Amino acid sequence: KKQTPLDLEHLATQIRAGSRLELSRGITLVESSNLEHRAQAQQLLQELLPDTGKSIRIGITGVPGAGKSSFIEAFGTMLAKMGKKVAVLAIDPSSSLSGGSILGDKTRMEELVKQPNAFVRPSPTAGTLGGVHKKTRETMLLCEAAGYDVILIETVGVGQSETYVRGMVDFFLLLVLTGAGDELQGMKKGIMELADTIIVHKADGDNARFAKRTMQEYKQILHFLQPATPGWITRALTVSSLEKKGLDNVWDTINEFVQTGKDNNVFDQRRNEQTRDWFRTMITDHLIDTFYGDPQNKQQVSNLEAKILNGELTVSQGVESLFHDKV
Amino acid sequence: KKQTPLDLEHLATQIRAGSRLELSRGITLVESSNLEHRAQAQQLLQELLPDTGKSIRIGITGVPGAGKSSFIEAFGTMLAKMGKKVAVLAIDPSSSLSGGSILGDKTRMEELVKQPNAFVRPSPTAGTLGGVHKKTRETMLLCEAAGYDVILIETVGVGQSETYVRGMVDFFLLLVLTGAGDELQGMKKGIMELADTIIVHKADGDNARFAKRTMQEYKQILHFLQPATPGWITRALTVSSLEKKGLDNVWDTINEFVQTGKDNNVFDQRRNEQTRDWFRTMITDHLIDTFYGDPQNKQQVSNLEAKILNGELTVSQGVESLFHDKV
Repeated sequence: KKQTPLDLEHLATQIRAGSRLELSRGITLVESSNLEHRAQAQQLLQELLPDTGKSIRIGITGVPGAGKSSFIEAFGTMLAKMGKKVAVLAIDPSSSLSGGSILGDKTRMEELVKQPNAFVRPSPTAGTLGGVHKKTRETMLLCEAAGYDVILIETVGVGQSETYVRGMVDFFLLLVLTGAGDELQGMKKGIMELADTIIVHKADGDNARFAKRTMQEYKQILHFLQPATPGWITRALTVSSLEKKGLDNVWDTINEFVQTGKDNNVFDQRRNEQTRDWFRTMITDHLIDTFYGDPQNKQQVSNLEAKILNGELTVSQGVESLFHDKV
Repeated sequence: KKQTPLDLEHLATQIRAGSRLELSRGITLVESSNLEHRAQAQQLLQELLPDTGKSIRIGITGVPGAGKSSFIEAFGTMLAKMGKKVAVLAIDPSSSLSGGSILGDKTRMEELVKQPNAFVRPSPTAGTLGGVHKKTRETMLLCEAAGYDVILIETVGVGQSETYVRGMVDFFLLLVLTGAGDELQGMKKGIMELADTIIVHKADGDNARFAKRTMQEYKQILHFLQPATPGWITRALTVSSLEKKGLDNVWDTINEFVQTGKDNNVFDQRRNEQTRDWFRTMITDHLIDTFYGDPQNKQQVSNLEAKILNGELTVSQGVESLFHDKV
């Protein structure tokens, strides 16, 4: 037991030195729900904190079938070949059911995985969305300490996952397909207003023409919506991951975004706000979890809820009886 | 002290009988922060609960200068003249600063106030948004018990007020002006996706033509956005409150909306969900208020936050030291 601190220091050194094996080990520690591991993970993170924060954090979401994996594969590979160190993380709240179909299917990122500069980590296959959220942030910090320049965080569009990811990244990409009208019908509320850039994907071959038109349509819609980032007008671009067209354009856009944000101070301000929000949210989550973690409270809430929906009690009476009965 | 229950029963009877004076008295009781009044208000509400729920609850918001008050005046007066009992409530989180500029300026609703079927109640000029929110819901219930058929809830676009109002109404109206492109730049994120109908207002005289065009633009944008209510396609209409044009159209639309929602059961389901959410939100608010209400917690959070932003502590360490130090 005494040797644990030594191991952690070694682990931290190895992660800083860029060992992908040790980085994976560190992430496993961070993801563990074991109490001792959690304490160790916190020590490790604190040790590595001074080395974090230097990457560009990019969130990626998309409509179903938009080809997020193939985009990440092509975009990540391009960056890796440019000499960038690229880490790919995925948030997949459904993975506890599906067994991690998003990135678990490694064949979808075959080329990227082969790059010595790339690190691909599927989401944990268990845990609540809140849990995944927390771990992904900390996993991101570990990757930064390991020297990754670009962190790509993929989200499947379940629940509040886009909002969570938006809350931890600098830049948010939304992948869509041609035929905006039809596509958008299935798009989540407010999703376009989370994006810093919308990519009309699969602009391959004959489809490129339609993709350009769709891009124009999105530009018009964007004109009517609030931009996600102050001082940045949300862009619309076309990309073919198949033909590797437009990927450099995405990278240029991201660099321009970062430069603009650093010039007008929005970049650092947002990061501070994100950290503050993260802390506040974790406090609230803790309060809620503690409250509902007591089976008596849970039962009482459910009984009162039934009475309220029956019209026997007002909502305020429900709340008062909940908190005053136990004094 | 013994006569209080008698008074409340009398008050309830008078409210049921439609006394505007006693309704005002009931609302004042509901809005009071005095503990004894609060208990009385809860008794009153429970007494009246069986008589609630029969109105159509309509939320109204708009871009600055859209003319919400003149719309409510014209629309409410039309309904009152049709024999409907109309109650107007306003949520104005800024009223504690401005002294209630929204509805306090009664001259803006001169005609409506004169209608025997109408009841206009400005928001309380003090209290947090959470507080206003809670009171507005309960005020709405009192108005329903008093036999009001239509409740119009106005919100100024501050903070989360639209989301709160959306959470307590059946139907949500967004008022905009001509020149969508310019207007929308100042529109809040996601606001269009809260609306069941968008009204291009001030379609007066020469402006009517532009209003029609703007309405078409909104229809196109709406085609790309998620509707606020399942089974209902968000409408865009033009209205001139000045010339009293299009107001009947709004009323027809609302009736069609209600009928559709009752046919497909969305109407009642949403009301139950709203009540459940209200209860859950009040529980969470109570937990948060209790926690931060302790000055020691507040101070500790602020100290830890500074350390976290400095990079001395991880967020998880902050949370753990917050909740484990006090065991």
